[in-house]
Amino acid sequence: MPTADIVERLRNGDRRALARVVTLIENGAPQARQILAQLHVHGGRAHIVGFTGSPGAGKSTLVMQLARELRRRDQRVGIIAVDPSSPFTGGAILGDRIRMQELAGDPNVFIRSMASRGSLGGLAASTRDVVRALDAAGFDTVIIETVGAGQAEVEIVRAAQSVVVVTVPGMGDDIQAIKAGILEIADIFVVNKADRPGADQTAAELRMLLSLDEQRKERPWRVPIIKTNATTGEGVPELADKLASHLASLRASGTLAERSGQQARSEMLALLQQALLQKIETTIGPEEWQRLVEAVVERTADPYTTADELARRIGLTPAE
Amino acid sequence: MPTADIVERLRNGDRRALARVVTLIENGAPQARQILAQLHVHGGRAHIVGFTGSPGAGKSTLVMQLARELRRRDQRVGIIAVDPSSPFTGGAILGDRIRMQELAGDPNVFIRSMASRGSLGGLAASTRDVVRALDAAGFDTVIIETVGAGQAEVEIVRAAQSVVVVTVPGMGDDIQAIKAGILEIADIFVVNKADRPGADQTAAELRMLLSLDEQRKERPWRVPIIKTNATTGEGVPELADKLASHLASLRASGTLAERSGQQARSEMLALLQQALLQKIETTIGPEEWQRLVEAVVERTADPYTTADELARRIGLTPAE
Repeated sequence: MPTADIVERLRNGDRRALARVVTLIENGAPQARQILAQLHVHGGRAHIVGFTGSPGAGKSTLVMQLARELRRRDQRVGIIAVDPSSPFTGGAILGDRIRMQELAGDPNVFIRSMASRGSLGGLAASTRDVVRALDAAGFDTVIIETVGAGQAEVEIVRAAQSVVVVTVPGMGDDIQAIKAGILEIADIFVVNKADRPGADQTAAELRMLLSLDEQRKERPWRVPIIKTNATTGEGVPELADKLASHLASLRASGTLAERSGQQARSEMLALLQQALLQKIETTIGPEEWQRLVEAVVERTADPYTTADELARRIGLTPAE
Repeated sequence: MPTADIVERLRNGDRRALARVVTLIENGAPQARQILAQLHVHGGRAHIVGFTGSPGAGKSTLVMQLARELRRRDQRVGIIAVDPSSPFTGGAILGDRIRMQELAGDPNVFIRSMASRGSLGGLAASTRDVVRALDAAGFDTVIIETVGAGQAEVEIVRAAQSVVVVTVPGMGDDIQAIKAGILEIADIFVVNKADRPGADQTAAELRMLLSLDEQRKERPWRVPIIKTNATTGEGVPELADKLASHLASLRASGTLAERSGQQARSEMLALLQQALLQKIETTIGPEEWQRLVEAVVERTADPYTTADELARRIGLTPAE
């Protein structure tokens, strides 16, 4: 199908066109790029929400409950699950499976699980592109669910405008992990399974960590801590409210434009890096590249001098 | 000090020269690059061992005990702690502090804690460079200790030839995290705090996960699971033995050369990407770059077409 047709259909709400585009993105098809270039200029309306947190924190159930709540508010909702252990990919418990079926049958909900194959950098790029497609297709909220708090997940949720970090009572190690790096990416903290003992204490610990985080002091947004019970849905309307306030705050403070700028910058750099790789391939070919690598491995050459020479040959730096 | 002098002194075991080089690396000093280029060709002898695992698993205590064991075997040992919560950086418990002092006073041990500031990609590069310096300085084993099991840590331990993943009995979430991605990077599993209840069960669960991991079947190395008690030192000699057998297996199977090739490749690509960034800066300057970013944010332009044009202007792709 010609690019212009797919773009047109996707924008008119054709789910098959959307599913097709997502598949093209996942397969890294050349056509995907042309489509995405056209879709980009039609987007910018969706609220992009990232969910992260440890395995077992109940993220997926919470995401489903949030999607239902947003549907009640008449929003169209896209869900991208970047988590091999997510119930969206199969292994759901009974309650989740029922919620899943309800959501999956709703024409105003689009759920896609993305396989965690290939490089994680590649996955972050694909996720961002699928967000772009859902945005251009008119979804009001696009939720990205990812597992864990490692840098890869941080990379993936960077595509989000609002980041929700999900934890559960008594996760001592979780708090440690939060200390180690996730604190600065959270816009909203959720203490899920709040019916368990220790929920108040976990919330209090988080509050203390947040107030110690001095950088926050100058920020216009005070990170809220919401207690939820994803199974019953308790706390979910409050989460939806806070997400809306966060978006409003991002807009009012100019932070939204700033974050979009950072995203555009890093995306263009990634695209230029692809062009760089192609240039290396066409300039020196795989055999010479292999010889250069071997010389570095055998320590007859060093990587710095070799890279400098390569940079000169592909015209990145002037000849000496 | 001239580059050649520093290189000479470092290779002759001058600790102050080594400390100086590490500082130059951490500060990203231009001289570091020249020094490292010369050091690279003198390296290749050290066994590089990565330690990773959840906070609280006792990694640091175990690393110290392993260092003591290797000293008993008359090895020179370098330790690089890439973990803000590591006792190497301050907050050690009493037993660790005594072991630390003993190690720190030994001229054949070099301990350096690396701050986790800046980008994580930058940290992985600095870690790799500090390993290079320790290798050229004649350390027999270089241990990299990092926290957690996120992609950043995986990136950091990729500099290692042998990766030890440390877990403790009953860490349910840990097993989940292992499932999610760390399984394939572990060369040795350690169940630390093996005096606690559940150690055998955790070891059995790990064994099952490993045997399910079909990819392993074709590999020459069968990942061992070692039970240790880092406080008493139990199991540590066995760990040292297994590390030595793993290195021997890597050499015999050709995997060592393969891994070195991958590392050389990714390092050269990273260096070329730096050259790319400089070229963009000198070709279009920060103001035009900012204008391009803004056009993408305002959706009057798309990132793909913009990056394509930039690639043409800096000579990465031919003009149309």
